[in-house]
Order: sequence, then C-alpha cells, then structure tokens
Amino acid sequence: MASDGFAAVILAAGKGTRMRSTRHKVLHEVGGKTLLAHVVDTVSGLSPDRTVLVVGDRAEQIAEAFPGIPVARQSPQLGTGHAVMAALPALDGYDGDLLVLYGDVPFVPTDTIAAMLIARRQPSPEDAPGLVILGFMAENPTGYGRLITDDASHLLKIVEENDANAQECAVRLCNSGLMLIDGTAARGWLGRLDNDNAAGEYYLTDLVAMARADGRAVAVVHADESDLLGVNSRAELAVAEAAFQARARRAAMAAGVTLRDPASTHFSHDTELGKDVTVEPHVVFGPGVRVARGAVIRAFSHLEGATVGEDASIGPYARLRPGTDVGGTAKIGNFVEIKKAAIGDGAKISHLSYIGDAHVGRDANIGAGTITCNYDGYNKYVTDIGAGAFIGSNSALVAPVTIGAGAVVGAGSVITKNVEGDALALTRASQKSIGGYAARLRAGADGKRTAGNEPAE
Amino acid sequence: MASDGFAAVILAAGKGTRMRSTRHKVLHEVGGKTLLAHVVDTVSGLSPDRTVLVVGDRAEQIAEAFPGIPVARQSPQLGTGHAVMAALPALDGYDGDLLVLYGDVPFVPTDTIAAMLIARRQPSPEDAPGLVILGFMAENPTGYGRLITDDASHLLKIVEENDANAQECAVRLCNSGLMLIDGTAARGWLGRLDNDNAAGEYYLTDLVAMARADGRAVAVVHADESDLLGVNSRAELAVAEAAFQARARRAAMAAGVTLRDPASTHFSHDTELGKDVTVEPHVVFGPGVRVARGAVIRAFSHLEGATVGEDASIGPYARLRPGTDVGGTAKIGNFVEIKKAAIGDGAKISHLSYIGDAHVGRDANIGAGTITCNYDGYNKYVTDIGAGAFIGSNSALVAPVTIGAGAVVGAGSVITKNVEGDALALTRASQKSIGGYAARLRAGADGKRTAGNEPAE
Amino acid sequence: MASDGFAAVILAAGKGTRMRSTRHKVLHEVGGKTLLAHVVDTVSGLSPDRTVLVVGDRAEQIAEAFPGIPVARQSPQLGTGHAVMAALPALDGYDGDLLVLYGDVPFVPTDTIAAMLIARRQPSPEDAPGLVILGFMAENPTGYGRLITDDASHLLKIVEENDANAQECAVRLCNSGLMLIDGTAARGWLGRLDNDNAAGEYYLTDLVAMARADGRAVAVVHADESDLLGVNSRAELAVAEAAFQARARRAAMAAGVTLRDPASTHFSHDTELGKDVTVEPHVVFGPGVRVARGAVIRAFSHLEGATVGEDASIGPYARLRPGTDVGGTAKIGNFVEIKKAAIGDGAKISHLSYIGDAHVGRDANIGAGTITCNYDGYNKYVTDIGAGAFIGSNSALVAPVTIGAGAVVGAGSVITKNVEGDALALTRASQKSIGGYAARLRAGADGKRTAGNEPAE
Repeated sequence: MASDGFAAVILAAGKGTRMRSTRHKVLHEVGGKTLLAHVVDTVSGLSPDRTVLVVGDRAEQIAEAFPGIPVARQSPQLGTGHAVMAALPALDGYDGDLLVLYGDVPFVPTDTIAAMLIARRQPSPEDAPGLVILGFMAENPTGYGRLITDDASHLLKIVEENDANAQECAVRLCNSGLMLIDGTAARGWLGRLDNDNAAGEYYLTDLVAMARADGRAVAVVHADESDLLGVNSRAELAVAEAAFQARARRAAMAAGVTLRDPASTHFSHDTELGKDVTVEPHVVFGPGVRVARGAVIRAFSHLEGATVGEDASIGPYARLRPGTDVGGTAKIGNFVEIKKAAIGDGAKISHLSYIGDAHVGRDANIGAGTITCNYDGYNKYVTDIGAGAFIGSNSALVAPVTIGAGAVVGAGSVITKNVEGDALALTRASQKSIGGYAARLRAGADGKRTAGNEPAE
Repeated sequence: MASDGFAAVILAAGKGTRMRSTRHKVLHEVGGKTLLAHVVDTVSGLSPDRTVLVVGDRAEQIAEAFPGIPVARQSPQLGTGHAVMAALPALDGYDGDLLVLYGDVPFVPTDTIAAMLIARRQPSPEDAPGLVILGFMAENPTGYGRLITDDASHLLKIVEENDANAQECAVRLCNSGLMLIDGTAARGWLGRLDNDNAAGEYYLTDLVAMARADGRAVAVVHADESDLLGVNSRAELAVAEAAFQARARRAAMAAGVTLRDPASTHFSHDTELGKDVTVEPHVVFGPGVRVARGAVIRAFSHLEGATVGEDASIGPYARLRPGTDVGGTAKIGNFVEIKKAAIGDGAKISHLSYIGDAHVGRDANIGAGTITCNYDGYNKYVTDIGAGAFIGSNSALVAPVTIGAGAVVGAGSVITKNVEGDALALTRASQKSIGGYAARLRAGADGKRTAGNEPAE
Repeated sequence: MASDGFAAVILAAGKGTRMRSTRHKVLHEVGGKTLLAHVVDTVSGLSPDRTVLVVGDRAEQIAEAFPGIPVARQSPQLGTGHAVMAALPALDGYDGDLLVLYGDVPFVPTDTIAAMLIARRQPSPEDAPGLVILGFMAENPTGYGRLITDDASHLLKIVEENDANAQECAVRLCNSGLMLIDGTAARGWLGRLDNDNAAGEYYLTDLVAMARADGRAVAVVHADESDLLGVNSRAELAVAEAAFQARARRAAMAAGVTLRDPASTHFSHDTELGKDVTVEPHVVFGPGVRVARGAVIRAFSHLEGATVGEDASIGPYARLRPGTDVGGTAKIGNFVEIKKAAIGDGAKISHLSYIGDAHVGRDANIGAGTITCNYDGYNKYVTDIGAGAFIGSNSALVAPVTIGAGAVVGAGSVITKNVEGDALALTRASQKSIGGYAARLRAGADGKRTAGNEPAE
C-alpha cells in the first residue's frame, strides 16, 4: 500500500579508490558544491520525512560536512542491499517508503525522482507497485543490468550482463540502481536478502523477485542517461563538471545573457545573472553571485559571494570576494580586489586597488593603487569613504578611518586620521632633487645604490 | 536589362524576441562588431549606390548606431516583400538594382555577393536574369524553401517545405533569402505583391513567378551553408562568435602566428598580427589591435586599440587600453595597465603599474607599482618620462609632470614637480624605529593599532 | 649481424616553409619544449652511442639550441636517403646501427623505439633483420607508403601510393619513415642509393629492396598513429600541442589531481603535481613547476620554475616566476608576483605585491601593495624578511635590506635601513588637512590641480 511519505537513503559507502584522494569521493565538488550536496539538495526539494547517509570509510568527513543529517556506518561494505540494511537502525520506527539514491550520481533531476514517488500513488491501492525502479535507455548497454518488462511495462526481472541470453542482451533499458521501496514491506524484504553468491554481497536488485513473489507489481520510471552520470575518478569528475557547466551556460543564454565564449565561462550551482548581462571570455563565478540586468562582466574576472548592480562594469581582471556589493553603474576595474565592501552607485575603483572591510559612497572615485589597510596582524577594521570623495592614487587608508563626503585625499598619502567632509588631506614629504646625480652614477662616480637610498651627501 | 549600380536593402525588422534583450538583435556583437555592421561593411566593399536599413522596433537604436545610413520603418511587419516595399520611399528616384540582405546574417562573403552582381551582367542584355537568388546546398534541408531549377540551372520556382512533393523535398538546394532584383522591374513586381495567404504576409519569393511570367530568367548563385549562419538567440550568437573565432584563428596560424591554445585566443574583426608573433593561452584582442612581427603576447593579456612593436613582450596579465603604442623590444609585464601612452623602444614597465596619458622614453625603466596620477577628478593631465629615466618602485607621478631623460626617481616618491634630466629626485620621510614595540604589542602591552598608526609615545 | 649499440640520426633538414617562420621548424615548442628536444630527450632515454642532427637551412639556430650535439649539414636537400648519407661523416669510424628519427615527429614513445631496437636482437644472428621499419595502421592510408608483408609479418616491400595496385591500396599498414639500419651493412646500402627517379631524390625506402637482395629480413614494428603526429604548419603545431595537453591532463587526473576545467589547464613537459592538488580553471604551468600534495592553484594563475609546498594556496591571479619556492600552507594571493624568492611555511602575501630576490620567513604577513625594490637599474639586491614579521600595506622595501623576525613595518613606509627584530619601523610624513578645500575647488574658487599638488596657501 502506497504511503505518502518517504525517507531518502543516500548510499555513499564506496571506497572511491580511483579518485586517489584523501577526501571522500562524494565530497568532491561540481559547480562549487559537493556531489553529495547535489543529491541532498535535490531530494530536500521533495521534502523527505527523513534522510540518512550510508557511509563506509571516512564517515567523519561526511558527518562534518552534513552536520544535520544522520550518518549510518556500513562496515564492511557487502553490497547495495547491505548498505540499505545499514540505514535501518537510523530509521527505527519509520515505516514510510525508502528512496535509495547514490551520493556519486549528482544530477538526477527533481522531476525524475518525483515521477518515482508518483508511480507509487495509484488510484486503487492494490495496484500500487511494491518497488519503483529508475531505468534508462542506454546508448551502449554493455555492463549494465537489463530491465526485462512485460507488455504493460511492468518489470519482470533485472538480468545482469553475465546472466543475460542474447535476447536479453539486446535490451537497451537498463537499471540505474535508484529504487523506491514500499515502506511497509521494505524491512521484510531486506531481512530476507542473502549473500549466497560468488561475490558474497547482498544485492538490492534481489528485491524485485521478492516483490513479485509477494504479488506486487514493480514499476519502471524512465530517466535520461545523461542525468545519471556517475563519478568514480577525477576524469569522470571533470566530465560531470563539464556537463554541469554546459547546462548552466545554455540556461543563462536562454534567459538573455550574452556569453561571448560560453566554454570559458564557469558557473556555480547558484549563479544568478540578469537579462542583458554580458560576460566576456574567461570569467569564473564562484558560489553566491548575483548580477543585475545590464551589467558587464569583463574578461578574466573572478567573482565569489558578490552582488553586482544594474549596468555596473566589472573587470577586466576584477576580483570580487565574499561580502562585496557593487552598486548600479559602478565600475570596478583591472587588478582590483574587493572584499566585504559595499560600493555605492556610480562609484569608480578603476585600477590596482584593494578595498576590504569598507563602505565606499555613491560616486566616489578611488584612485589607482589605493589600499585599505584593514588588518594590523590581529584584527580587521573598517574604512568608510563618503559619497563623492576622491582618493588620490597610491594612497593607503589605515583603518579604522573615515573619509568624509566630498573630501579629497592627495596622491601617495597614508591617511591614519579621519578626514572631514569637503576637506583636502594629504601626507607628503617635500620633493628633493640633486642635479646630475644620475649622470654621475652612470659614470661610476659613486658606485653605490641609488633608487632607494638617498645618496650620502 | 542589367544595370551596373545597385542599392543595398538590409532587412532588420525582426523582433528578435528569442534574444530576450532590450538591445536590438542586430546590434549584438560578433568579433567586437555588431551583426549589422558586419553586413554593412561587407556590402560597403562593393560600393553600393545607396544603402537602406529596414527596421521595425527600436529603430532609434539602429539610427544612433549607423548615423550616416537611411533607416526605413516597417510597421507593422508583414513579411520580407513588405520589408523591401518599406525601403522604396528612401530610394525615391533610384532605378538601379536592389540587393536584399539580412542584418542577422553577418558572414556572407564579399565574393559571394559579388558573384550575385556579376550574374546580372550578361553579354546580351536579353539574357540578364531578372532576379538572382542566393542558394546553398543544405546539409539538412528540412524547413528551408527548395530551389527547383531546370537543366541550365535557371530557377523554375521556390517551393516551401509545406507545399513540396516528395521529389521536391529531396532537393537539397535551398533558398537563403538573399536576392538581387533588376532595378528597372523591381517597383512593378513589388507593387503587385499581395498578402492573400494564411499568414497575411507579402513574400519576396513571389517575385520569382512574376519575373518568369515576364519572360525573365532567374539565376541562382551558390553560397556555402556555413557562410549563411543566422542569429536568433544568444546561443546562436555564441555559435556565430565561435565560427568567427575559428576562422580568425586559422587565418592567423596560416599567416605565421603561433597560437599556443587557439581555443583560448579571442580575436576582433580587425586584429592584425605579424609573422612569428606568439600568443600564449588566454589572450583577448579587443578591437583595434596591431602587433608587429616577433612580438610575444603572454598569457592572460588583454589588448584593445593598441599597437605593439617588433619583438616586444606583453604580459602575462598586461592590459593595453586604447591609445597605447608600445615600441619595439619594449616589455610590458604583469598587472600593468597602459592607456593613451607611447612607450619607447626598449622601455620596461614590468610590474603592477598604471601608465595613462603618458610618454615613456626609449629604454626607460619604470619600477614596480608606479602610478601616473593623470586625473584630479576634473581633468586628465600628461606625464612625460624621458629616455633612459629610472622610476623607483611604488612612485606616484602627479601629472602634469616631466621627468627628464636619464633622471632617477627614488622609490616610494610622490613627484609633483618636474625633474630635470640626469637628476635624482625623491620625497622621503626619515625612517623611525621603535625597538621592541612589536614584541610589546604581541604581549598585549598596548592593545591598540600598530601597522598604520604611529604608536602613542 | 645485430649490434647492441646504435647512433640516432635525427633528420631536421626540411625547409618548413608552411610554418612561415624565421625560426627553424623543429625549434618551435610543444609543452614548453622544442619539437627537436622532444625527440632528443626521448632517444637519450635509450642511451645512444652517438646522436647526429641533420640540418639544412638555419643550421646555426639548431647548433645554438643543442650545443653538445653534432650537426651535419645537408645541402642541397635531396631526399631522406641523402639526409642519412649526410650524417655519415659525423659518424666516421662508427659501425653500430643507425636509428633514423625525425625532428618534426615529437611524440614517438620511448617504448616504441625500444621495440625497434629489440627487434634487431634475435637469438640466432642470421635471423636478425637488416632493417626494422616502424609502421602504423592508418585510419585513412591515403598518401602514405604501404607496407606489404608476408605471412610471417616480414616486410616484402614498401609501395608508394602512386605505384600501388588496388589490392595494395587497400592495405592500411603504412610507413612512418622511422627506420633502424644494421650498422655493419648501412654504409654499403646507403652508398648504392641513386636518385634516378622523377624527383631526383635519394629514397631511404630503397634500402628495403637492397636488404632483401642481400638475403636479410626486414622487420616491422607497429606504432599507434596518434604517436606519429608530425608538424608542418602552425595549425599542426597547435594540434600537436593539444595532443600533448590532452595526455598531460589525463595523466594528472589519473594521479589524483582535480582539474576543474581540464581544457583550460596548460601543462609543460615537466609539470609535477601531487595527489589531491586542485587546479581551478585558467591556469598555465610553464616549465619547471612542482606542486606538493593538497595545494590549491586557483584560477588565472601562472607558474614557471616554481615549487609549491603542501596545502599551500596560490592565486587567483598569482604569478610565480623562476626561482620561487613557496612553503607549506603558505598563501600567495591575487595580483602577486614572486621571483627568486623563498616564502616560508605559513607566510601570507595576499594582494598586489612584487616580491623578488627575497627570503620571507615563516608565518610572515606581507601587506597589500608591498614591493621589494630589488633593482637600481644596475644590480639586483636581496630583501630578507624574518619569521613572523608584519609588513604594512603599500610599503617599499629598498634592498639590500633586512627586516628582523617579528618586526612590524608601518603602512606606506619606504624602508631603506635594516629593521631589528621585534621593532616597529616606519616612514611617515604628518597628515595635513585643509578644511573645505575640496568644496572650494568644486566651486571653481581655485581652478588648479588638487589631488597631487599641495595647494598654494
């Protein structure tokens, strides 16, 4: 009988040996998010009653990365059926359906999983299938278990490649491994699994025969093969990343974003770009970026955790770090780093600057080479620059410090005290000149240092 | 009767809905030039007597972008024939041929259009075709109108997909839409077009039957399908850009340029690179760049409106902005921005500098972190650095200012007055030291700021 | 009779016209190493008795690039046989085998060449083949000479495309041109070559008939076609580079390196990356880079001749130049250039700095905009920064200079004298302020410069 609720059991106990990594395989990232977080986030969208992560080695890495989710240990690892059995203690007293997912299969769409849940909800309860299997038409089925169905598309059995006859081998409908199990029958069936086979493993696919022996139908829901991409090596991780990026690029262009060179534009899972945004070649969007309509992200820019206002211009070679909020029509230029700073509408920071822990007022102009000295080795301090202020080039603003609205700071200054609005402030030693000194130096008259040290007179 | 002159009628009245843009579709760019400018520039090479742009929505955007060219409004938009009719008032009194082009088909080669014009010039005037249609052999003809020709390759009719029988469907020669119309007959034929069809539109292709009814031949000129790429969405814009880039990269390599990674090198429509130029990965050439032979453009460089002399070295991470002229064997290094500046032969600007509105003399050496302070918030001023001058690191040169030939500026100076040739100039406060201060700070002896503020003594 | 030793004869006399280069074709680079150096290095791994380079034009370029290797001039260039004959004077008195290689075929694996050498070493000397030919199964054999073999896979003859009958044309086993020649017979055979043919050239392939006429077997060793890629144009150079990069990327990922975007990661021939290194998009590794396990190379970084310690973080936008040694867990941030400098474990150089000819102690913190002034226009000098020192932002350290351990340098200082450990050092002019000055300027009260010049008072 179909239940409305379900628990997500996400299997992540594989050793991931081919990754050659000290990090757990499912903690590697695609689109700036771990493989496992892709799966967790997808299933969260379907509001499971419970979620359990089944982990073998390095369970502490998983527990640390997903602090709110129960982690069941599977040790030793004796097959998929064994893995789901390992989740049961964490589901003590729960009798909703069990949805079996895989932590290294990150791209199964929410709609596809929803279709599995819906397949359990039949008008007459006796028609509700005991199992729902996610299948796919394989471009090349070699190596996959084949799904053998009857005329009504109910599953008769899953045949592994090695056991398949010629007719079965020709079947292209294959088993993805994802499965939804009637919660009222699940414990009974799982308890009857055995490992009486060559590998000594407990196979989840054995549930099919059990369900059918109990007179229950087994339904098949179809997925696109491209949505079932799995990750077992760094090369496959790169393939998954490329698939993610291709999708993100297509979506951005369809929404009215110009990507001058889509292949060199890198998105994160949560990048949001408004209509008529233009992205030049070689741009990286880390997590947490929102760009409002009409903004231009120029070549070689790198944004993370930043918002960019309408018609703003970023880069080339701009780096926006987390906590950056660039106002409308503002301009962030080349070799400029911004961190935890609100940049007002129309402000300009065009060249070679570091602005951190700061407020920059509307229409302020920050000269080339300006640096906010926000750190003294112990703490961080705030720089506050007023609207319309003009900071001369190569200035250091030693925080905490306030530059009033409309104030001017002379080039090359080190500003350590607040500057009142509309004032001119500067620090400047007087210019000295020694005629012919450079010529004498070239002639070898005094063989010592020049550019830095003042000459001995 | 064939005429020698022609008027180009460029159709750009499509709504471009799929672009999801507030900018007119044909004003989107490929290779740093708008789609429409590609078409206008191509046809300009053939010296038309007149050019008319036929525009629907957002005509003011087109008029602003092409100030010298008449813009005819087509409103409402009732088909291609209607669009050409809309151009006629702007061609009042003109009776040369009409060449119909499309603003969103940017890559038709000059030679192909020339072949259409030549097809009108027959030895005996009675043989001159009344129409010349540009056709192409479609890889997949589905959706295109088929060109049905006789044994002499004269066009009999254009059959739309929906009206085609099986034999006609199998024809791969398709209609591009480009057409050359005998100017002496054009007004008569266009005046007889009707919109008595399901769509209620005036079809330009109806001219074929009219010409033949008047006993005129209709010629077909063949184009490559790849030259007829059209743009209707951002994805297609990206495809067009990729096609443009692939062509530009092949041409550069054939001319003796090494592209270490062609796929990461981005050209503009007018980029000129000399023989034995080397371009490292991840380089962007904006419009207006010329690089002389033997120069090396290192990785992550961005050039716009700049010329680079022989054997010069640019980058990595160099940004040359419009008005930059780098001399032979000069070196522009990393995180350096140059704007409106002439850099003499052999000069070096190697690190972290902004040089704007400046002249830098031959063999001058500009130290790391040098900034020309060219802007005071109101105006721009010029910095003039003489041949062989040496600017110490982290200096600010406050323009207008002149550094004489062979002069030396001490590190960290703010130069506000002219420096005479061969002189040493510097601004420098004396170095103070407070022994043990840092240790006391670490020990918490005085809990306040250190790096910026002088300690209270 | 088989000999154990061999001389490598590397042919590099082609004119390379299609390269359109003043540089010799085989001196163009793939993976940061010249084509010819790829061949020389491969064969060096097999310890040849001698190596001879056969060169036509621009021999002086080759001699300069390979100072230890004899260069034989072939002038005029009359075919491959003629080229090997040109090598003989440089091998006077040597009677080991001759291994004929090509300077523009850079990727033949060591194992493949070793298989050619092994094929000459038969248990009974009379079975040792007189020649060993390297063949390959061509995807498309058009244009290649076909290898016609008997049932025992011995070569009967090489048939050029033009002379081949239909049956021979169907053979896909083709001649690569690489050949190993019995040294005791080589001079006799080469001396009997003639150029009595249409092209007037001496063909090395004529040796096959001579060997067989002398009753000697001719063996065929098989290579993968992809290993035989040759370079005749810049486009083919780009293809070779892409092939090299694809291989290097696959190898790195298989070894446990994450490449976020393999296609945008550029390796050199000797790049070494440890396990669990992560490389973000758009990174260039020049020659001589080693990165220890766990380090992260962030986007837009450029490394040459540098070592990076465990768990260090490099970039984004970091440039490590030759002689850089970054310690474990150290952090090199954006727009930072390091050259000839040892950076201690845990040190941080996070923003907009140039550190050259320097030692930076463990856990030192180098503020934004710090520049080591290492050059006075004549010589380079060293900056020594002690462990745990804190350099305030925008400081210039004028070398030679020592900053003691634990010392603090105030922001904006120009340090020309040594700073003792735990001291605070700074140079600072006092801050002046003129109230309302900026407002008066805006109002036009004094129409002159502001940001740079101090106002006349």
